[in-house]
Amino acid sequence: MTDARHGLTITEVRLTPVLVADPPLLNTQGVHQPYIPRLIIEVTTEGGATGLGETYGDTAYLALAQPLAGALIGRSVTDLNGLPELAAEVCGDPPGATGAGAVDVGGLRGVRTAGKLRLSVLSGFEVACLDAWGRTTGLPVHALLGGKVRDRVEFSAYLFYRWAEHPGGRGEPDDWGAALDPAGVVAQARRFADTHGFTSFKLKGGVFPPDEEIAAVRALAAEFPGRPLRLDPNGAWSVPTSCRVADELADVLEYLEDPTSGTAGMAEVAAALRGARPGASGRAGLPLATNMCVTTFDEIAEAFARDAVQIVLADHHYWGGLRNTRELAAVCRTFGVGLSMHSNTHLGISLAAMTQVAATVPHLDHACDSHYPWQTEDVLTERIGFSDGRVDVSDAPGLGITLDRDRLAALHRRWLADDGGLRDRDDAAAMRHADPGWVTPATPRW
Amino acid sequence: MTDARHGLTITEVRLTPVLVADPPLLNTQGVHQPYIPRLIIEVTTEGGATGLGETYGDTAYLALAQPLAGALIGRSVTDLNGLPELAAEVCGDPPGATGAGAVDVGGLRGVRTAGKLRLSVLSGFEVACLDAWGRTTGLPVHALLGGKVRDRVEFSAYLFYRWAEHPGGRGEPDDWGAALDPAGVVAQARRFADTHGFTSFKLKGGVFPPDEEIAAVRALAAEFPGRPLRLDPNGAWSVPTSCRVADELADVLEYLEDPTSGTAGMAEVAAALRGARPGASGRAGLPLATNMCVTTFDEIAEAFARDAVQIVLADHHYWGGLRNTRELAAVCRTFGVGLSMHSNTHLGISLAAMTQVAATVPHLDHACDSHYPWQTEDVLTERIGFSDGRVDVSDAPGLGITLDRDRLAALHRRWLADDGGLRDRDDAAAMRHADPGWVTPATPRW
Ligand SMILES: [Mg+2]
Ligand SMILES: [Mg+2]
Repeated sequence: MTDARHGLTITEVRLTPVLVADPPLLNTQGVHQPYIPRLIIEVTTEGGATGLGETYGDTAYLALAQPLAGALIGRSVTDLNGLPELAAEVCGDPPGATGAGAVDVGGLRGVRTAGKLRLSVLSGFEVACLDAWGRTTGLPVHALLGGKVRDRVEFSAYLFYRWAEHPGGRGEPDDWGAALDPAGVVAQARRFADTHGFTSFKLKGGVFPPDEEIAAVRALAAEFPGRPLRLDPNGAWSVPTSCRVADELADVLEYLEDPTSGTAGMAEVAAALRGARPGASGRAGLPLATNMCVTTFDEIAEAFARDAVQIVLADHHYWGGLRNTRELAAVCRTFGVGLSMHSNTHLGISLAAMTQVAATVPHLDHACDSHYPWQTEDVLTERIGFSDGRVDVSDAPGLGITLDRDRLAALHRRWLADDGGLRDRDDAAAMRHADPGWVTPATPRW
Repeated sequence: MTDARHGLTITEVRLTPVLVADPPLLNTQGVHQPYIPRLIIEVTTEGGATGLGETYGDTAYLALAQPLAGALIGRSVTDLNGLPELAAEVCGDPPGATGAGAVDVGGLRGVRTAGKLRLSVLSGFEVACLDAWGRTTGLPVHALLGGKVRDRVEFSAYLFYRWAEHPGGRGEPDDWGAALDPAGVVAQARRFADTHGFTSFKLKGGVFPPDEEIAAVRALAAEFPGRPLRLDPNGAWSVPTSCRVADELADVLEYLEDPTSGTAGMAEVAAALRGARPGASGRAGLPLATNMCVTTFDEIAEAFARDAVQIVLADHHYWGGLRNTRELAAVCRTFGVGLSMHSNTHLGISLAAMTQVAATVPHLDHACDSHYPWQTEDVLTERIGFSDGRVDVSDAPGLGITLDRDRLAALHRRWLADDGGLRDRDDAAAMRHADPGWVTPATPRW
């Protein structure tokens, strides 16, 4: 019995930053870089199991991950409740953030505070610990979270306006071509539907004037009648513009995601939508979703009190892990707020982790977002597949995935070789390769 | 690997109702019966481990436990997220409660609904499953909950007005004598402090007119200067009486527990306490605690929106288990609401479970309540001890306790033999043995 416990003691933690190919996907800040940094975490136990985790790989995150990795040696992979305090102790404040202050992180996932950065890093370690624990005891991660309540997890197709290639032909080529108008968006959606079976579609907006994006969503609705559609301009619109788009699209949208920036603006839009009489307009009842104004537990009380958001998009990275994601789900359930899942560019480790936790939350009643279908590269021996837009929940020990060390080494060599300023994701800087005068647009942009 | 998983499959569930001796402790409803029903749950796995759980043993709970026990066979002890749905499926509505309606349960722990009864039953199974899981894998239950953040859990001395013996000399005698005035309460507190090292004291009130209870708390404050004190009249007072008691005792109370009945009344009292200017009165800032108006997740939103309570007293029995208790803790933390722990008459299994979960919650910043020191009987081979008012957090597999089958059998024989109407706890009926005309007092009583 005691031996079993000792087998869970952490003896080694390996951190491997990588650069992963990413297509030229557009958003209101700019465009995805040709390569995006991620951090791969391996936690090895005395029992010989190695667990995998993945999180942001930007410089500030790496700076936090290194001391935390050292501090984990000798602890048990089950010792997770103490991680936040440990991280606060050993990590200090990362560059560009302070405990008290909030630093903007491009606006795509809300404020950037020392606490939130620490949670993002800690999350990668938590996932790796759970994977190692599961591998040691023969249990899938979902069992360590109290067991799955579904066998498959649904994801939505994540549609982007995009160019055919990165400026100057940088990065890895693909055969998707450009999508810059309704026809392009519909073609992209059709290919996603045909390839992966997605039946729910999200368009990343905030790129073109609202009327163009309204037209794209209308075109999707015509092509896929009755299917759940979402539009996410990352807070680019004013309150009146948000209300106008809601008016135009209420009959076809499942939810409208972060139409405007900040809890106050979202509350105004939500109040306007509630106030609209169903007879006069279809927008009454259209819920607002967010991964920008509610991104930490500290932001919940005000947002819920003002009924600013009706759906929170969980992200186990910045919420601090799979267990915190379940706590967020409990908070949302308690307050009658819906739950869905947010995604940044990520690899298969994070998709496996998302799938495992999503499988355990009864209250998760929207398809999750995932960039994964855009990632042609991975660090796994076998890619995770979608069928009917769903990922099967693995019952194999841990996350049920296997690291491909050669692929990991190759992507790490790319990170080592980088002298193109790609080690910190910066969508505005990437955009300047096409438009040297580009600056991050002020909000509201429209 | 697969074998390890199979070892966690449930092969047998045993339910043993018992009657446990309880002293003549007074509350606003009446007096504790000489014997109180509890249900002991044993869950045995294919791997040969047997986990222990404990919950209410009244008829309605037994009626729910039986079908749930049968439905658990063949499931994994890790499969906990699916328990609520399973319970809803197989249990149906218990006698005396409906899904929609709320039936009063003597007022001591809030409304009684079918959902809440199911959670109370389910909780005993969840604890037994966690114990069996821990025993199988060599891990303490706290590790299965993400690990302890403290090595000892603090409890408060739970003081009661009481008689020297039950009416007619029924039940088991003890040497505590009566406590019916300030001197008696202080003597009881002194003995608790000397025996167990408690340094925090809670008086169960609502028994005598408020001025007598104020005098008792004042006497405690004089005897134990600076120690945290609590008073809990179980909602017996009007709003003005609650405010008056708060005025009188604000300088010595850690918190005032359920002074008045219902969220609306609690909100009124809380608002009055907030409104009192610190210069004019000591009551500003005196927090209200509850285990009556917030007893389910459904009751949280309204109570928090009205700031009716500043501390929630968790109880893993009716909140639905150790994992739900952690979710409640997360909700409270998110909204800046404090957390402490409630207790009814219980045995060592539940004390071990409370201690394990309390050890995992960083945010638990008040001593927990426990009736355990009043229980001279238990079903364990070894009683759980308090020193410095604290219980050591066991690191042994599971709950770290051992069932005494002879004691269990003896207490079960007492349950089998009962023809005195003790199989359903009824403090008012017990009171009628002393006062035949007694009826449960209407609230507010004062
Ligand atoms: Mg978004
Ligand atoms: Mg109470």
